[in-house]
Amino acid sequence: MRDFSADHRWLSLNTATVRRQGDLLEIIEACARHGIRAIDPWRDQVAAIGLERAARTLRDAGLELSGYCRGGMFTSDAAHRIEARDDNRRAVDEAKALGAPCVVLVVGGLPQYSRPGSVASKDIPAARAQVEEAIAEMMEYARDARMPLAIEPLHPAYAADRACVNTTRQALDICDRLDGGRTGALGVALDVYHIWWDVELLGQISRAGKGRLLAFHVCDWLVPTKDILNDRGMMGDGVIDIRSVRRAVEAEGFEGYCEIEIFSEAWWRKPIDEVLRTCIDRHRTVV
Amino acid sequence: MRDFSADHRWLSLNTATVRRQGDLLEIIEACARHGIRAIDPWRDQVAAIGLERAARTLRDAGLELSGYCRGGMFTSDAAHRIEARDDNRRAVDEAKALGAPCVVLVVGGLPQYSRPGSVASKDIPAARAQVEEAIAEMMEYARDARMPLAIEPLHPAYAADRACVNTTRQALDICDRLDGGRTGALGVALDVYHIWWDVELLGQISRAGKGRLLAFHVCDWLVPTKDILNDRGMMGDGVIDIRSVRRAVEAEGFEGYCEIEIFSEAWWRKPIDEVLRTCIDRHRTVV
Repeated sequence: MRDFSADHRWLSLNTATVRRQGDLLEIIEACARHGIRAIDPWRDQVAAIGLERAARTLRDAGLELSGYCRGGMFTSDAAHRIEARDDNRRAVDEAKALGAPCVVLVVGGLPQYSRPGSVASKDIPAARAQVEEAIAEMMEYARDARMPLAIEPLHPAYAADRACVNTTRQALDICDRLDGGRTGALGVALDVYHIWWDVELLGQISRAGKGRLLAFHVCDWLVPTKDILNDRGMMGDGVIDIRSVRRAVEAEGFEGYCEIEIFSEAWWRKPIDEVLRTCIDRHRTVV
Repeated sequence: MRDFSADHRWLSLNTATVRRQGDLLEIIEACARHGIRAIDPWRDQVAAIGLERAARTLRDAGLELSGYCRGGMFTSDAAHRIEARDDNRRAVDEAKALGAPCVVLVVGGLPQYSRPGSVASKDIPAARAQVEEAIAEMMEYARDARMPLAIEPLHPAYAADRACVNTTRQALDICDRLDGGRTGALGVALDVYHIWWDVELLGQISRAGKGRLLAFHVCDWLVPTKDILNDRGMMGDGVIDIRSVRRAVEAEGFEGYCEIEIFSEAWWRKPIDEVLRTCIDRHRTVV
């Protein structure tokens, strides 16, 4: 396992972690101040400053990307299907323009939450079938752009409103069905927050192997969790044995960035430099 | 599938649903008023009025039990192990005295939450090993009392603080290892709240079969869920396709009570008769 204690060269910042503290330009500046080499930006943050300006600023700052957040939200009623497809194609184009190594897919839950305005449904098996069909379609487009897609299994607490792919096994089953040849076009983005609880986790990481492990995200699970979306913890403040998961991922040959993604009302209220200093400290001591 | 539309003979009330509205005596009276034939009482509610009085009142009211809540919380440090064992043996004794068909097991998460005062740990594999060992030990005691144990897989959101058994598959794997002969001594209590999101659910219900399906609980998953413990929904108010789960359970031959268990600040604030009327209505129309 890589030694993170001496530096933070493998730290990437998911820009949602500090999305309240500034726009993407300010976040990039802050990363430069703290010697952070990579980020994973969100589409709305890129849109806010403009795609070309974002790409140029990233290049000028010498920042790499560890992913692009996000594609997905595939589930919808018939009236919203083309919108969802085109939206995802634009995500691929943007990722390409920014030099991202993959597009992270949050696949969507029930259609009324995934694409608001869609007819409400409680049929989660149907949502799952739709997700798989849509990923297959998106893959064709993404393959032409040579842009890998990374399915992110989300915690089962988000099954209704964010993603109906909820375990690493389920995500890998989709990968096997849609890319049995392991071409590199499809893989998973694993975030310890979503998967730490899973009794099958280590076995499924091993099943994924290097070829399917496209991204690795860290934060922590707080007890109690006061808000299921926006009360994620700084690494070390919760109950996840983060290092055991990183060990398993790296045992498969993963050698990419360790991306910090924290949705937290508490951390959004702190100054950006304090957040980044804490991230770096925890990256070295806990991750 | 049984037709619930004409009456509520298969409705059981988990007494936590109205625990703020009155003590167990008042809850039993309210059930009698509403023609509810069965309950699943909690140990603290029984203790509050005394075990013998509880047993006598239940008998006098002609109420059956659909389970007894709850045993478990097996995870602890060494200093709390005997306490946990003896506590669970008392749960078996009480269940026997009350005529319960099974003891529901909420197995515990990390030791510091399961048995407060225990040394803190992030080792969830160790917690799981301890759970399995403790269930094996409890089974010996429960077998002598002819009291089945029902492992309740809890939603992954509770993995740290309440139960590190988080899927139906995981619970059934334990059943297979500890009671491979399917003697009836060990099974599962399935609550739609905890398992509805699981892509493997229907397959695992089929794997369980009638012999392992010891209890079936209903409520609903609200979107948004404002509090992960105490914001469960009344059936029909959320996103769970409850009937599809009941259909699967009954297809295996389950013919027991459909137990309503709702932890909800909102419903705890309403008058008990309003809650029970609503439960009966939803049981007939949604469950």
